[in-house]
Amino acid sequence: MIVILRRGATEEQVNRVVTGIEEAGFGAHISRGEERTIVGAIGTSPEMRPHLMEKFTGMPFVDRVVPVLKPYKLVSAEARPEPTVVEVGDVPVGPGTFTVIAGPCAVESEEQLIEDARAVRQAGARLLRGGAFKPRTSPYDFQGLGEEGLKLLAAAGAETGMPVVTEARSPDHVELVARYADAIQVGARNMQNFDLLTEAGRSRLPVVLKRGFSSTVEEWMKAAEYVASVGNLNIILCERGVRTYEPAVRFTQDLAIVPVVRELSHLPIIVDPSHASGNRALVPAVCRAAVAIGADGLLVEVHPDPDGALCDPAQQLSPGQFADVMEQVCKVASVMGRAV
Amino acid sequence: MIVILRRGATEEQVNRVVTGIEEAGFGAHISRGEERTIVGAIGTSPEMRPHLMEKFTGMPFVDRVVPVLKPYKLVSAEARPEPTVVEVGDVPVGPGTFTVIAGPCAVESEEQLIEDARAVRQAGARLLRGGAFKPRTSPYDFQGLGEEGLKLLAAAGAETGMPVVTEARSPDHVELVARYADAIQVGARNMQNFDLLTEAGRSRLPVVLKRGFSSTVEEWMKAAEYVASVGNLNIILCERGVRTYEPAVRFTQDLAIVPVVRELSHLPIIVDPSHASGNRALVPAVCRAAVAIGADGLLVEVHPDPDGALCDPAQQLSPGQFADVMEQVCKVASVMGRAV
Amino acid sequence: MIVILRRGATEEQVNRVVTGIEEAGFGAHISRGEERTIVGAIGTSPEMRPHLMEKFTGMPFVDRVVPVLKPYKLVSAEARPEPTVVEVGDVPVGPGTFTVIAGPCAVESEEQLIEDARAVRQAGARLLRGGAFKPRTSPYDFQGLGEEGLKLLAAAGAETGMPVVTEARSPDHVELVARYADAIQVGARNMQNFDLLTEAGRSRLPVVLKRGFSSTVEEWMKAAEYVASVGNLNIILCERGVRTYEPAVRFTQDLAIVPVVRELSHLPIIVDPSHASGNRALVPAVCRAAVAIGADGLLVEVHPDPDGALCDPAQQLSPGQFADVMEQVCKVASVMGRAV
Amino acid sequence: MIVILRRGATEEQVNRVVTGIEEAGFGAHISRGEERTIVGAIGTSPEMRPHLMEKFTGMPFVDRVVPVLKPYKLVSAEARPEPTVVEVGDVPVGPGTFTVIAGPCAVESEEQLIEDARAVRQAGARLLRGGAFKPRTSPYDFQGLGEEGLKLLAAAGAETGMPVVTEARSPDHVELVARYADAIQVGARNMQNFDLLTEAGRSRLPVVLKRGFSSTVEEWMKAAEYVASVGNLNIILCERGVRTYEPAVRFTQDLAIVPVVRELSHLPIIVDPSHASGNRALVPAVCRAAVAIGADGLLVEVHPDPDGALCDPAQQLSPGQFADVMEQVCKVASVMGRAV
Repeated sequence: MIVILRRGATEEQVNRVVTGIEEAGFGAHISRGEERTIVGAIGTSPEMRPHLMEKFTGMPFVDRVVPVLKPYKLVSAEARPEPTVVEVGDVPVGPGTFTVIAGPCAVESEEQLIEDARAVRQAGARLLRGGAFKPRTSPYDFQGLGEEGLKLLAAAGAETGMPVVTEARSPDHVELVARYADAIQVGARNMQNFDLLTEAGRSRLPVVLKRGFSSTVEEWMKAAEYVASVGNLNIILCERGVRTYEPAVRFTQDLAIVPVVRELSHLPIIVDPSHASGNRALVPAVCRAAVAIGADGLLVEVHPDPDGALCDPAQQLSPGQFADVMEQVCKVASVMGRAV
Repeated sequence: MIVILRRGATEEQVNRVVTGIEEAGFGAHISRGEERTIVGAIGTSPEMRPHLMEKFTGMPFVDRVVPVLKPYKLVSAEARPEPTVVEVGDVPVGPGTFTVIAGPCAVESEEQLIEDARAVRQAGARLLRGGAFKPRTSPYDFQGLGEEGLKLLAAAGAETGMPVVTEARSPDHVELVARYADAIQVGARNMQNFDLLTEAGRSRLPVVLKRGFSSTVEEWMKAAEYVASVGNLNIILCERGVRTYEPAVRFTQDLAIVPVVRELSHLPIIVDPSHASGNRALVPAVCRAAVAIGADGLLVEVHPDPDGALCDPAQQLSPGQFADVMEQVCKVASVMGRAV
Repeated sequence: MIVILRRGATEEQVNRVVTGIEEAGFGAHISRGEERTIVGAIGTSPEMRPHLMEKFTGMPFVDRVVPVLKPYKLVSAEARPEPTVVEVGDVPVGPGTFTVIAGPCAVESEEQLIEDARAVRQAGARLLRGGAFKPRTSPYDFQGLGEEGLKLLAAAGAETGMPVVTEARSPDHVELVARYADAIQVGARNMQNFDLLTEAGRSRLPVVLKRGFSSTVEEWMKAAEYVASVGNLNIILCERGVRTYEPAVRFTQDLAIVPVVRELSHLPIIVDPSHASGNRALVPAVCRAAVAIGADGLLVEVHPDPDGALCDPAQQLSPGQFADVMEQVCKVASVMGRAV
Repeated sequence: MIVILRRGATEEQVNRVVTGIEEAGFGAHISRGEERTIVGAIGTSPEMRPHLMEKFTGMPFVDRVVPVLKPYKLVSAEARPEPTVVEVGDVPVGPGTFTVIAGPCAVESEEQLIEDARAVRQAGARLLRGGAFKPRTSPYDFQGLGEEGLKLLAAAGAETGMPVVTEARSPDHVELVARYADAIQVGARNMQNFDLLTEAGRSRLPVVLKRGFSSTVEEWMKAAEYVASVGNLNIILCERGVRTYEPAVRFTQDLAIVPVVRELSHLPIIVDPSHASGNRALVPAVCRAAVAIGADGLLVEVHPDPDGALCDPAQQLSPGQFADVMEQVCKVASVMGRAV
C-alpha cells in the first residue's frame, strides 16, 4: 500500500502516517519527491489492508492511497499459475475443451424439459441448465417450480447423460439445490449476496458465478474469493453482460473481459449470450466470438417452443437454431484447438 | 402495450400479433401508418403484461414493443395521489418534516454506540442507525456483531429516545432484526434480493429500501412493489449513489432523481451521502443539496472516532462535523418549509 | 410517433395533442385504452419529427412520446437492404472480404513509417493508417507532424501499394487531408463534430467514422446520416470501445454491437482493438473475436519499436506480434467465408 | 510516478525501469516489499510524464503505473489556492455572488429574444445566453441563425444591460463570436475539440467550458488546461449532466461534482439544469440544489413561448416559471451567503 500525501504535508503529518502503519505491525518506507512525499507500507496482511487503506484515505492531508497487492489471493493467477479445470459431474470445464451448458430459462414441465434436454444433448451440449428458482424483477412474474423443478431437472439430466446446473437464489436454497444438482449457479443479482456465496462454497459443488451486471472485475474476483475462502475452488466464472448507457441492447456483452480475467485468475470463464442480449437474433454471433476470444464455454438458453415459454421468450433459441449455432461454434473451436 | 411491426410486415404477421393479444384475453387495436403498422393491446393485466411483451419482442417481424402502463401499481403516484408519511416508531418521514437518521457504519461496542447516539440525538437526529450484519465485498473484512449488535442498538435507541433502523442482509435475518429494530434496511446490493424484500415486507415494519447502485428507477419501484405486494406500504426509498465511469468519487450521487421519484411514487425518499461519496469532505455539501432538492430526510454515518472505526472510516463524520452539518441543514430546511 | 397521455388526461388535453399534430400537417389517430389515451401521428416527415416529439414531451399532461420510425434514413438497412461495399482506393471493405487497416498511432519519421508499412503489408494488411493530426487530451502531449506527416504517409502508401487512411481533426483540415489520403477518419471525440462530418462528407472520399466513446448506436447512425446527407454514402463505421464503470480496461470493447448495427444499417463496420484496450496484450484475442462476430475488418496500431513510440506505446503491436495476429485472423476468417 | 512491477520481476527487469527513468533525465527510487518491487520516478516534468507512463505500462513485467502528480497545473488548486473570480463584461462569477445566465436555447428572432431578455433580466439574471450556432445530433434539425443571431444577441444584451454568452461550435467560429459576445461557450460535445479550446483561449474572452457528457473530472481539467495554456485563465466550468444507464432522465445531473471540483481547481463552476434533465419540471429543484451544494451560478434556458420554441421546447422554462425559480434560488442563496 502506498500513501500519497498532499502537497505541503508537514513532517508531523508524515509521521502520523508512519506511526499508523507501524502501529498496525508493518514497515513504513518514506520517499520524498520534489512536490510530494509518499509512504509505502511493507508486509501488510490481507485482513488489515482494506481497513488501513480506508483509514489513511480519510485523513485530510492524504491525497490518495494506492493498493499494491490485489485484494484477493486464492483465486488469483499468482496463487496458481496453471489454469484450473473444474469438473461438473464428469464434464471438464477448462483449457483444451469448450463446454456448452444449455437448456430452458425455466423448468416448466416434464415434457418441455425432456424434449429440450434431448435436443441440446443431440446438438453437442454437455451440461443441462434450467431454472427452478427464478429471480424476477417484478412480483407479478412466474417464479419457478421450486423443488418440483429440481426433480425434473435431475431426471432429465440422468436420462440424457448430462450433469445439471441450476440456480440457488437464497442461502437457504443451497442445501435443497445441492441434493439434485451437479453445480450451483449464483446469479448476477446475487454476486454480492455474501451469505449465499458462503453457503454455495460450503456445498463443495462447483459454483457457476455470474458477474454482477455492474460489478467490476475486482469485485467479481472478491466474490469468487468468498467461495474459495471456505475451501471450494471449483468456481466457473460467467460473463453475462454489463449495464451501460446503450439502449439498443439489454446489456453490453463484455467479451473482452475474457482475456483480462485470464491474466488475473486461474479459474475457467464462460459466456452467457442469452441474458446479455435479451434477443435471440444476436446469440449466434456472440457464441462464435466467445470461442474466438478464448472463453472455456457457453451458457445458452434453448426452449422447445420459445414463443410459448413462460419466461424470457425473446432470448431463447429453438432447438433448430441451437443446432446451427453449435455447428458454427465447433468450427471456430477447432481453429482454437478446443474440443466441444 | 403497443407492438410496432417492422416495415413490410405482411397481413398474416399482423394477424399473428392480433391473435396473440386476443388469445391472452385482451383487445387489439390496429393503426396503419404510411410506413408501419402498429397494434395496441387494450385491457392487459399486470400479471400478463411482461410475459406478453417478451413474447412479441421475440417475433422477427416485430420492431419493438412499447409498454404504456408502468410495471408497478401499489407504490405509484397514480395509485395514491397524496404523499405517504411513514412512521418509524413515533417519528414521521414525509412531507413537512425533514428526518435525519444517523449513527455509526457498524455497531462496534456499547461505549462507541451510546456515545455516538447521544451526540447525534443532541445535534438533531431523530432516528438511530448502525450495522449489525455488514455486507462486505471481501471475505477478509469485519462482518458485524450480529445479534449482540442488535441488542446494543435497541438499548441505545431506548436510552436516547430514538427508534432504530438497521440492515437485514438475508431473508433469515429478518425475524431477528424485527425483534430489536423499528425499521429494516435493505441494502443497495440486496435491492433485487426478492426473497429478502418479501420477508422484510411481511415483518410489517417500515422498510428503508436503498436503490441498487446500478438500478434504474423502474427497477427500484418494482423492488418496492415486492414489499408492497405482501401488504406493507411503509417503505422509505433511499438514494445512495449510482455507479458511473467517474473515478473521482466512489459513486455518483443522483440527487436529481428525487424530483423524478416524486412524480412517479407517493413514497417518501431520503438521501445517503456517506456511501455515495465514500469521503466525509463531500458530505456537508450533499446534505444541504438533498434538503434543497426536496428529499424527506438523510441517512448519515457518524462515528465518535472516525479514524479508529472498524469499517468505512473515510466516510464517517465526527460528532462535531455532524453538528455543523445539522446547523446548515436546518437553515436550508427552513427555506423549504420543513421542520428538522 | 405515438403520444401517450397521462392517466386522467381530459378531452381538451387530448384535443390539444390532436390539433398540434394536424397543424403540423399530419394525421392523428386516437386509441383509448382502459387507463390511458394514446394519439398516433401519421405521415410525419423526418424534418418535423424531432421537433414535434420535443414539443409534446414538454406538455405536462403527456406521459411519454414514443418514436415509431428511426431518426435516420439514408444509412438505414430499410433504405438499402443490400450491404454496401466501400472502396478505399482499390481495396473493398464489405461482405466477402476482411480488410485490415494497420500502421503506427502517429507518423513520426520517414524511416519509422516505411519500415512499419512494409511490415504490415507483408503480414497481410491492405490499408495503411497513421496519424498526422493527433487529438491529445493534454496540451503537453505530442500533437503530430501535420502536413509533413501526410506527405510521408502518401509516399509510404504508394511504395507499398496500400491506400492510406488518416484522421482530420477539424473541418479546416479536410481539404489538406483529402489531398494526400484515400479515406478520412473522423475520431471518436469528433463523432458529433457536425461541421467536420459535413466537410468530410463533401470531400467525396470514404469516411471512417469512429463511434463516440459514449455514443449510442442511434447517435452514431445520425452522425453517419450527416455524412450521407451531403451525398456521400462511402462510410465505414468503426467500433472502438465505450466508456463504462470498469477500470480494468481503458474502454469496454462493444463487439456485440456489430450484429446490432448489421440489423440497422447497410454500411460496413470494422473494429479497432488498440484504442479500446489501451493494452497490446488484449489485442490478439479481440481481433479473433471481431472476425468471428462478423465485422468487415480491423483497424490495428503497429509500430516498429512500440517502446520507443511517441504516442500510445502500450497499445501498439510490434511487427512480429502483428504477423502472429494476422495468422490467427486468417484462420477464423476462413471459417467465416471471408478472404483477408 | 510510481511503477509497480509484477510479482517475480527479475533484477534485470527492475533495472530496465530504472534505466528508462534515468535516461529520461529523472531520479529513480526503488522500494522492495515482501511481494513486489516498486520504482518511483522523481522530478519528472509534465511534458514527459504521460509518455513515460504509457511506456512503462506497456512493459509485460509491469503491473501498473500510478501517477503521483495531477496531469494539469495552471487550473489546479495547488497552483492558485484562492478561488478565481471571472468577470464577464462587468459581471463577476465566483465566491460571494451567485450568477444566473439565462435566455433561450436558440436565438430565433428579434422579438423572441428581446422579450426573453427583458423577462430574465427582470427576474434577476445577470448574463444573457442564446445559441446562434446550434450543434444538432440530426442533420434534419434547426441549426441556428449564425451571424444574424449573434447580432440580435449583442443588441438585446446592450438594451437590457446584460453581457452575452454564446457558443462557438468550431475553431473558425471563434473570431466571429468574439466580435459580438462577452464570453464564449464551448459545448459538451466539443469539450475535447482541442483546436476549438485553443482558439477560444486565444480570444482572451472568458470561456464557459461545459463538461463532456461522459468526461471524467480529470479530462475536464485537462481541457481547461488547454485554454489556460495559451494564457487565458478566465474559465468558467459548467456541469451539465453525465450519461448513465438511467433512462428516466436525459442525463444524470452530477451535482456532487461541485465540491469535488472545488478541491481540485480554483476556477468557478456553474450548473446547467436544462440540458441535463431535458425536462422543465425538474429544473426548479435542481436550481435550488445547485445553490445549496455551493455552485457559483446557473445556466438556464428560458423561452417566451416554450411550446413554440424551435429547439428543445421540453426543457425551456416560461418567463413566469423562471421568475418562480429565481425567488427560490434567492432564498437558498441568502442562506449560503451569496448575492444573486
